[in-house]
Amino acid sequence: MLSGSSGALRKAAQAAARRLSSAASSAACGSAAPSVGRLNHVAIAVPSLEEAAAKYRDVLGVQVSEPQALPEHGVRVVFVQLPNTKLELLEPLGEGSPIAKFLEKNAAGGIHHICLEVEDIAASMAHVGARVRLLDRQARTGAHGLPVVFAHPKDMCGVLTELEEVPRR
Amino acid sequence: MLSGSSGALRKAAQAAARRLSSAASSAACGSAAPSVGRLNHVAIAVPSLEEAAAKYRDVLGVQVSEPQALPEHGVRVVFVQLPNTKLELLEPLGEGSPIAKFLEKNAAGGIHHICLEVEDIAASMAHVGARVRLLDRQARTGAHGLPVVFAHPKDMCGVLTELEEVPRR
Repeated sequence: MLSGSSGALRKAAQAAARRLSSAASSAACGSAAPSVGRLNHVAIAVPSLEEAAAKYRDVLGVQVSEPQALPEHGVRVVFVQLPNTKLELLEPLGEGSPIAKFLEKNAAGGIHHICLEVEDIAASMAHVGARVRLLDRQARTGAHGLPVVFAHPKDMCGVLTELEEVPRR
Repeated sequence: MLSGSSGALRKAAQAAARRLSSAASSAACGSAAPSVGRLNHVAIAVPSLEEAAAKYRDVLGVQVSEPQALPEHGVRVVFVQLPNTKLELLEPLGEGSPIAKFLEKNAAGGIHHICLEVEDIAASMAHVGARVRLLDRQARTGAHGLPVVFAHPKDMCGVLTELEEVPRR
């Protein structure tokens, strides 16, 4: 029957359209950049952790943590918890601290890096590393015990950019 | 009458207690630092807004706004919306842009300032300005149309720190 044929054709066309739509969606997902998520923290290198912590507490009225030594990362750190993200005040610790050279150039301190959260460090490294230089070929364990990698500041508008794999909340 | 006198005394005592409590509360408010709130944005100065926006979009997979010219602030800006805060990419616009000197020193770009939200700019200026230098004696209208003031980076661990009055959400 004409109406029957027409109905069958319509169903076949609809099924084909669904397959095409699904394929297009997969292709789009495959080619899309894995998006970074939250700003995890802004890291600020300081010459004196105690002075910096007192300043943030007394001048800005924020809560600051007790200082913590992270010898495997070459820093002592104070966390400044804001309602939506953290500031991390970093003081060099030990020989070869990763922030020592920065403080030689910026004696008063300054913003050292920003940290953006990613869901899958391997996927982000593959995508980001194909477009800009990463400082390491393998992710390392960062100060929060999670996998991290840094993108080269010269390739990121002068901003040292840390990517940290944080499980989705 | 004794009971009447007693009632009057009780009322007087209650009123005095209320006044004392109120005075103590005022004193506490007066001495506590008005706390900053959310990190409103991280401002990144860049030599080319289009290149920077493309990089953030293509490398990091984030959504970026269309460029907006803010001639009264001497910048063109692209907003990068993250789930918990914003990045603001700034390119100099016109003569005497406030970020021109920064880009002379940092040709590839770099983090220019951070912006913290406050509830009452006048209260924050009184407290912060008594402890560190502010760049202006009066709050100015910032790029978001809200009152802002900057604290001197040399007094804030090398970090140019903007305070912006944002109504409580």
